[in-house]
Amino acid sequence: MLTSRTKLSRLPKRGSHENEVIYPILDEAVFCHVSYSLDGQPFILPIAYCRIDDTIYIHGSVGSHFFRQLSEGVEVCVAVTLLDAMIMARSAFSHSVNYRSVVAFGKTRLVEDEAERWLALERITDHVFKGRWADCRLPNASEMKKTMVIAIPLEEASAKIRSGGVNDDLEDRELPYWAGVVPVSTVFGEPVADAGLEGQNAPDYLKR
Amino acid sequence: MLTSRTKLSRLPKRGSHENEVIYPILDEAVFCHVSYSLDGQPFILPIAYCRIDDTIYIHGSVGSHFFRQLSEGVEVCVAVTLLDAMIMARSAFSHSVNYRSVVAFGKTRLVEDEAERWLALERITDHVFKGRWADCRLPNASEMKKTMVIAIPLEEASAKIRSGGVNDDLEDRELPYWAGVVPVSTVFGEPVADAGLEGQNAPDYLKR
Repeated sequence: MLTSRTKLSRLPKRGSHENEVIYPILDEAVFCHVSYSLDGQPFILPIAYCRIDDTIYIHGSVGSHFFRQLSEGVEVCVAVTLLDAMIMARSAFSHSVNYRSVVAFGKTRLVEDEAERWLALERITDHVFKGRWADCRLPNASEMKKTMVIAIPLEEASAKIRSGGVNDDLEDRELPYWAGVVPVSTVFGEPVADAGLEGQNAPDYLKR
Repeated sequence: MLTSRTKLSRLPKRGSHENEVIYPILDEAVFCHVSYSLDGQPFILPIAYCRIDDTIYIHGSVGSHFFRQLSEGVEVCVAVTLLDAMIMARSAFSHSVNYRSVVAFGKTRLVEDEAERWLALERITDHVFKGRWADCRLPNASEMKKTMVIAIPLEEASAKIRSGGVNDDLEDRELPYWAGVVPVSTVFGEPVADAGLEGQNAPDYLKR
């Protein structure tokens, strides 16, 4: 999956085009950003998704302007970014961030096959909390009619990862500034039951 | 800042074009996604930034392909997304997410004025941890030469916010599924000192 669109020109040692690096990042993130371009004007939408093999699926309302555009088959860019730490170096210049990110390119496809639509909705619902699809009221015909599913085949994708600690220049290492790593993470809190369900234990699959 | 690019077609009750809604979201997020388009192909880059009045500043290497493109003055889209909760409804269809997001449009400008470049770097360094710029080795002439600063004036911007709880249809509310809210937050952990600084207390401004 290596072309001029995903060739890593900056810091190529941080980059990878391997599925075993890319897929875990796509599977861990909660949402992605999808960008497309209309007459040279780029648009970005943050959105929930799932990955099935090398395809990303997103869903939205048939009334959404963005989704109607995507349904026509357009080139998009998908970005998924996980932030792991802030790197506080002794020099301003060497400050950095630990992250794991994927940037992927593909042409959108309106999903019309009902089985594929259903599977995509199942996997989107289960993407963050596996087990939810089996524990809720599934879509009815009217809801399916209101829902558009778009597939984005990952024609090209690259991952970029920065990990580790402070990387100050040698001559800065004796400077009298504190340096180190501030870990950052996305934390899922204790589930809060809806009105009327107080006291009922939340399902185990919601505890991450 | 309301034009056809930012007119909210879906769920306009969730949207706002007011600076007092937009600025706090831009000031809280750690990084943004910037998208631009080249011959109809959109590209996205996740990147650190700061806001000064109604301008977003980003910085990068003069050797970066992406930054060289931005230096020419191109239309970009900037997205900032804060995830607050996962909404687990009784029906799959009513599942949702609490979030605060901003989507903004502007034409990039290469910053050449040295005072403006310096201020942008100060604010980017202080964006997440205010006080860091005053507590590190500031950029030297060689580092300034290697650094490109790009301004993105927020010509148009809109915020979208979903908050609150589960919103199941009335007829679903007696269904025997657990429903509720799973809070999500970005958490900064305890700072970890670089080798040689073990035991030194991290500065207070790193504790968020």
